[in-house]
Amino acid sequence: MEYRIILIGCGTVGQGLLEILERKADYLRDRFDFEPRVVAITDKLKGSVLCRQGLNLKSLLTILEEGKKLNDYPGAKEKIPGFIDPLELIERVEAEIMAELTYTDIKTGEPATSYIKKALRTGKHVVTSNKGPAALHFHELQELARVNQRQFRIEGTVMSGTPVFHLFENGLAGNEIKEIKGILNGTTNFILSKMELDNLEYDEALKLAQELGYAEADPTADVEGLDAVAKVVILANALMGGRIKPEEVKRQGISHLRRSDILEARKAGFRYKLIARVRKEDTGLITSVAPEMIPLSDPLAGVMGAQNALTFDTDFLGKVTIQGAGAGKIETGFSILSDLLAIHRGEKN
Amino acid sequence: MEYRIILIGCGTVGQGLLEILERKADYLRDRFDFEPRVVAITDKLKGSVLCRQGLNLKSLLTILEEGKKLNDYPGAKEKIPGFIDPLELIERVEAEIMAELTYTDIKTGEPATSYIKKALRTGKHVVTSNKGPAALHFHELQELARVNQRQFRIEGTVMSGTPVFHLFENGLAGNEIKEIKGILNGTTNFILSKMELDNLEYDEALKLAQELGYAEADPTADVEGLDAVAKVVILANALMGGRIKPEEVKRQGISHLRRSDILEARKAGFRYKLIARVRKEDTGLITSVAPEMIPLSDPLAGVMGAQNALTFDTDFLGKVTIQGAGAGKIETGFSILSDLLAIHRGEKN
Repeated sequence: MEYRIILIGCGTVGQGLLEILERKADYLRDRFDFEPRVVAITDKLKGSVLCRQGLNLKSLLTILEEGKKLNDYPGAKEKIPGFIDPLELIERVEAEIMAELTYTDIKTGEPATSYIKKALRTGKHVVTSNKGPAALHFHELQELARVNQRQFRIEGTVMSGTPVFHLFENGLAGNEIKEIKGILNGTTNFILSKMELDNLEYDEALKLAQELGYAEADPTADVEGLDAVAKVVILANALMGGRIKPEEVKRQGISHLRRSDILEARKAGFRYKLIARVRKEDTGLITSVAPEMIPLSDPLAGVMGAQNALTFDTDFLGKVTIQGAGAGKIETGFSILSDLLAIHRGEKN
Repeated sequence: MEYRIILIGCGTVGQGLLEILERKADYLRDRFDFEPRVVAITDKLKGSVLCRQGLNLKSLLTILEEGKKLNDYPGAKEKIPGFIDPLELIERVEAEIMAELTYTDIKTGEPATSYIKKALRTGKHVVTSNKGPAALHFHELQELARVNQRQFRIEGTVMSGTPVFHLFENGLAGNEIKEIKGILNGTTNFILSKMELDNLEYDEALKLAQELGYAEADPTADVEGLDAVAKVVILANALMGGRIKPEEVKRQGISHLRRSDILEARKAGFRYKLIARVRKEDTGLITSVAPEMIPLSDPLAGVMGAQNALTFDTDFLGKVTIQGAGAGKIETGFSILSDLLAIHRGEKN
């Protein structure tokens, strides 16, 4: 079955998705009868391209690798100006699915939220790895999707393509969830791992993370727990019926931790991890992001380096933990494919 | 939506399922529009009961708790002899789904395989936690299901209700799997954990496992790796397209391991685990069950006690590990519910 897809944003995730769709075109058609056709892309930096029969992904990836604009795409295409505004593109181009892959603004959720609304209102399913809209406007967007009989899917917002929402919707369905807790930020987990295993102070481990590209020049969003807060809000609202706002999450970062704290905990049989947690209490949901000393017997204690993991505490299965990549071009690109395939299978979320 | 369900076998798993369906009836109807109606049960030891309008599960569980026969069910029911042969029951009673919950015979797969064939041929979906038919006749039964446009679902055969097949079919779909490896036998993992953590010799740890009910009086199937072999064959055939027979799996148990082996490995930064493995090579699938020294950094190294875990090595996500219960009345009962819900959602496997 063919699906026409619009990409809004063509940075790392968008290019990861295009690579996957190009490499696996035959496999996806033969195995799942799934034939995606990317018909339009617009990106503030890279320009725009539009071809209603579907772009040749090989040519497209070649010009992107060469650092050229999307407008330089050599195949058949429509005549357009240098950059088409996403809202206009979404309005104008017929497609079954819009993949929203622009940057995360965790304060406003914009402009992504406006793009998502426009897409749902014009009858398109939406898949996104953008944490802003999912953290700030989940219920509104989900309701808009419902009214328009379309889907709003967000697998890539937590743990990149490692299945979190799929796991909840399928394998765990029928359980009631008492608590979700996890290691949802790879940068801080890398820093804590290095402090313990290589005996570094916080500043040294942070510097190493920056050199290796795990941490940004301004590491605040990671080390002060803001990134993990966005994810815990998404989990609380999307999976546990919450109406939590990011500022309501109890938050503490890791920058105050010293090597001596970590080694002392280790001697006592514990390990410091930045734990994101949402727990159902009689009074409502309790959410937090904070360094916690967890026993070495906890599955989360063994999660080292930039890996992520999440434990669902369920009524029938007890604790179920999933561990995998938390970031990455191909890993997050795959999150988009996995949502496209869920739409293709006709699953409802 | 209502589903009429026949239970063949009413031991631990069957009673776990009945408890779940009774406790969660309102939740399952309100949340998923799923209304299971158990219309018939037959069990060699406990007798039979038949009520086409659906049995009252509360009454049914009460008489089972009191150690009575199914025939003693006090509600409305049809007049039947003490025990109805499963093949006759499956033939005679109309139902959408048959849950096959009899004992595992890993040599022949019988009589379960005959029950499953009869159910598929009479238009019923089949869900089972029985390893025999899935290990010995997977492709034949899957093909019979396809021809009859019904499903043959086996979530409970590996890691009880912890999602393995659901994870593969949904969250991981689109990936190609290079290797699946895991800890699939809780008894041996409990023994190895005790040998290391409590400094026991093999015989002492085995005795403890027997006292706690983790190991049977004749522990051969667990400690010689036969149970894990059945599971690795199921994974190879159901998820990786194999046509493997149990006797083709390279197998070594744990009974030759000494405390000193385990402590030495530990000093070198490794931990012994009974690893079940299926790997795709150019020449075909390589399968094995054997104790392996794995590095402590491997997610499987942290899996202690009777827990199970499985790592999928995928082309897009790298390694994804799921950890959870590997056995249990409610946990395995839930595996059946999770397959019932997949059928209800209209998923195809």
